[in-house]
Amino acid sequence: MRRLISALFLLLLITVGSSASPTHWQKRVREPCKKLVLYFHDIIYNGHNAKNATSAIVGAPSWGNKTILAGQNHFGDVVVFDDPITLDNNLHSPPVGRAQGFYIYDKKEIFTSWFAFSFVFNSTQHKGSINFAGADPLMNKTRDISVIGGTGDFFMTRGVATLSTDAFEGEVYFRLRVDMNLYECW
Amino acid sequence: MRRLISALFLLLLITVGSSASPTHWQKRVREPCKKLVLYFHDIIYNGHNAKNATSAIVGAPSWGNKTILAGQNHFGDVVVFDDPITLDNNLHSPPVGRAQGFYIYDKKEIFTSWFAFSFVFNSTQHKGSINFAGADPLMNKTRDISVIGGTGDFFMTRGVATLSTDAFEGEVYFRLRVDMNLYECW
Amino acid sequence: MRRLISALFLLLLITVGSSASPTHWQKRVREPCKKLVLYFHDIIYNGHNAKNATSAIVGAPSWGNKTILAGQNHFGDVVVFDDPITLDNNLHSPPVGRAQGFYIYDKKEIFTSWFAFSFVFNSTQHKGSINFAGADPLMNKTRDISVIGGTGDFFMTRGVATLSTDAFEGEVYFRLRVDMNLYECW
Repeated sequence: MRRLISALFLLLLITVGSSASPTHWQKRVREPCKKLVLYFHDIIYNGHNAKNATSAIVGAPSWGNKTILAGQNHFGDVVVFDDPITLDNNLHSPPVGRAQGFYIYDKKEIFTSWFAFSFVFNSTQHKGSINFAGADPLMNKTRDISVIGGTGDFFMTRGVATLSTDAFEGEVYFRLRVDMNLYECW
Repeated sequence: MRRLISALFLLLLITVGSSASPTHWQKRVREPCKKLVLYFHDIIYNGHNAKNATSAIVGAPSWGNKTILAGQNHFGDVVVFDDPITLDNNLHSPPVGRAQGFYIYDKKEIFTSWFAFSFVFNSTQHKGSINFAGADPLMNKTRDISVIGGTGDFFMTRGVATLSTDAFEGEVYFRLRVDMNLYECW
Repeated sequence: MRRLISALFLLLLITVGSSASPTHWQKRVREPCKKLVLYFHDIIYNGHNAKNATSAIVGAPSWGNKTILAGQNHFGDVVVFDDPITLDNNLHSPPVGRAQGFYIYDKKEIFTSWFAFSFVFNSTQHKGSINFAGADPLMNKTRDISVIGGTGDFFMTRGVATLSTDAFEGEVYFRLRVDMNLYECW
């Protein structure tokens, strides 16, 4: 009897012990382990704003050129950017990092784009980077893209980022609000 | 004795209880949690097919231009696309969404390409998007690329997509079959 | 008493049994499950080296062209590559695969770039591919980008790759060392 109970106890210790080991198991919950809201600001080079521009058209279809977004809803334009990231919606707030990458306009009939870029942080609050990719059907109020990885403070992260156009001025300036919900945090 | 058994029982309840909590643990099995087979159809703009074209050359090497794929196995051509996705291999079937993104030809000696794109669904069956990236050595019968994320019905998904060229006509039309095996489903 | 112990034992078997099932649970540990160090070699086409070049400028800003990297720290240049991967830092070592994809220069003030590419292996040691994306602030000694997926031997992998510029010659040749730490291995 006593031996049976001892055996039971040993088994229990093993079972319970395994969950208290230094490696921790990954939970898959639909609640974010981290949330972040940031803004970034894109000023497209148009031939006259070299000083302020943060992005430039670098690819265009045969009917386009590189100082003005092409006709047919900019279909085929490729834009490379290095945009300031701010904590609020003010272009002149101190940037906490840079949004770096590119977007393409990819539909003739309406405005829609595709993004691949990184948030590269350099602030007291955050070091490291977050990498994004996904379709941005920009006529929708909100659009979801994927957080596909991260480094530094955002080591190995994954999640979903909801983009919304916070403001735009003609075809030169736009500001994107990015609501990040990270579901994998290491 | 009774107290010992009570203690054992309490421990058991804790152990068992933790696995019955609303958060569920992630299994890592090499069996897909979701499988999908879809087709997409690419019609490259060649200067004469503006009405039907679903893609356009937007970047080319110094020896290329934008209405015909470049010599040297199209090395350096960048193509932006917005292609209809269908459930079967018929271009004229009702599309269930759009394949949006770009591909590049990236080898001088043979045809090979690199893809980054999204499936953006808009059908009664599927809402949301799936994001892809990877090398497509298109002379091979099948090629594997990565599913790097998803949104909506495909929230946080990951997996492997096997591409195969289902048909092509000259250098203007090709149809890709995509066999998706998703191994992470939230 | 005996029945109580029997019940306890049954519970234990269920608990212990569940962790011994054929599906194994994912551990989340900050220790790599696989480590790899590889080099790749990029020779940019400059109008005179067609035979040796492994990459070409395919997109450029309005102030650039396609046989020389643009002013303003190459901001806006898009380069497509198909570079040999070697086990050591010798360009002439037998390649174990090809690094295929593209990079963009994305800042006016300093050199910095953004990469999306695959390692496509074809050696006795490795079959399959690894996919990468991320910012490469190349003036830093080391830069971390994300491993966003893989196929074949690297099925479903994720991790962090640390890039460092191992050597460069003018603006035509550079060699990158890639230290991969994979934290998800299936």
